[in-house]
Amino acid sequence: MRKLFQEDLHNVGDQLTGMAVRVAEAMERAYRSFETTDVQLADEVIAADARIDAQQNDLDEKAIQLLALQGPVASDLRLIVGALRMSTSLERMGDLARHIAQLTRLRYPDPVAPASLVPVYREMAVKDIAIAHKLVELLQSRHLGLVSEVLALNAQINDLHAGIFVSIAQPEWAASPASTADATLASRYFERFGDHGVSVARKVQYLVTGEWTAPPAS
Amino acid sequence: MRKLFQEDLHNVGDQLTGMAVRVAEAMERAYRSFETTDVQLADEVIAADARIDAQQNDLDEKAIQLLALQGPVASDLRLIVGALRMSTSLERMGDLARHIAQLTRLRYPDPVAPASLVPVYREMAVKDIAIAHKLVELLQSRHLGLVSEVLALNAQINDLHAGIFVSIAQPEWAASPASTADATLASRYFERFGDHGVSVARKVQYLVTGEWTAPPAS
Repeated sequence: MRKLFQEDLHNVGDQLTGMAVRVAEAMERAYRSFETTDVQLADEVIAADARIDAQQNDLDEKAIQLLALQGPVASDLRLIVGALRMSTSLERMGDLARHIAQLTRLRYPDPVAPASLVPVYREMAVKDIAIAHKLVELLQSRHLGLVSEVLALNAQINDLHAGIFVSIAQPEWAASPASTADATLASRYFERFGDHGVSVARKVQYLVTGEWTAPPAS
Repeated sequence: MRKLFQEDLHNVGDQLTGMAVRVAEAMERAYRSFETTDVQLADEVIAADARIDAQQNDLDEKAIQLLALQGPVASDLRLIVGALRMSTSLERMGDLARHIAQLTRLRYPDPVAPASLVPVYREMAVKDIAIAHKLVELLQSRHLGLVSEVLALNAQINDLHAGIFVSIAQPEWAASPASTADATLASRYFERFGDHGVSVARKVQYLVTGEWTAPPAS
């Protein structure tokens, strides 16, 4: 029984990794649709989000079964509760990628972002995608140096997000009010994606070390 | 032992209700600071959010202890896992009230919202606060007619949120780009608060009925 339980725990870990893989792919494709105004790709991202939601449901049901059947204690219990929390964050990251695709669909055939901001969004998206990839690696390897890397990327995303508002407040800002609203929402979505990535990374760290403070980046 | 456990479960329910009470108060005060440009009140809301976070931590620790010590199964287990989910949503509602207060602080002594939109934000906030009060009542009474009322209020908030973007796109929109960005974020925060309220309401309903579909409003 004990060995089976450990296998089940590993399965939950694999399911989390699977969610993180899909989330990375969702943001990669959502950003591509956003930058290239590819409405077909945007629709694919919107449709694919249901699969991430289904992965979360599967994982949650599995976790609840383990709680019911195994009555785990101590670190195993915290692992399962932690998995429930991480699946929520990953599901939310999928939603945010979908929101980027939905903005693309809403404004099609116009691009969402004013041309002057495209390089900033690209940088935010690249860092978001990097965070998702690091979560995949972290969930597999539990190499805690990755936690600090996620935190550093997220801090950079926060700076880029703040920079968007500085750009919007400049006298030379020429976008329409509707476009200004879109630019604001897009920036918020990219920024929140990083925040949720940090939540997942911190949770892994807590489960491995029992501490919330990240070690220095490796 | 069994009787003590039932008392513990009640305590978790009381803690959720306590969080909902604080969240309603946070949004009521955050909106008041936002409308009246009361930076001192905004600061109080920002500081008070730490108490909601602490309530969440207490509740989560209690729930994990119950899982560890009691090894609950079936409906008791779902109740505890549901409580963990609800505490996450309530904590997030507190964050969103704090974000409204932070916008107020950021723009002080200017108001965040263009005067033309104040009535719309007021309506959003009144409905958000009503949702939080209905969550308090729902958590206490488990009267499921309240779920449909929360859903209806949230649908109205979504319409108001969409209306903000229609206003921003009108030729007579005269706010600065920075103010347009603030107006967008504020609307998003009020809208998300309602979404999290719906999550809590649906979770209570699921725990009571085992079904996700709401009964008609009473």
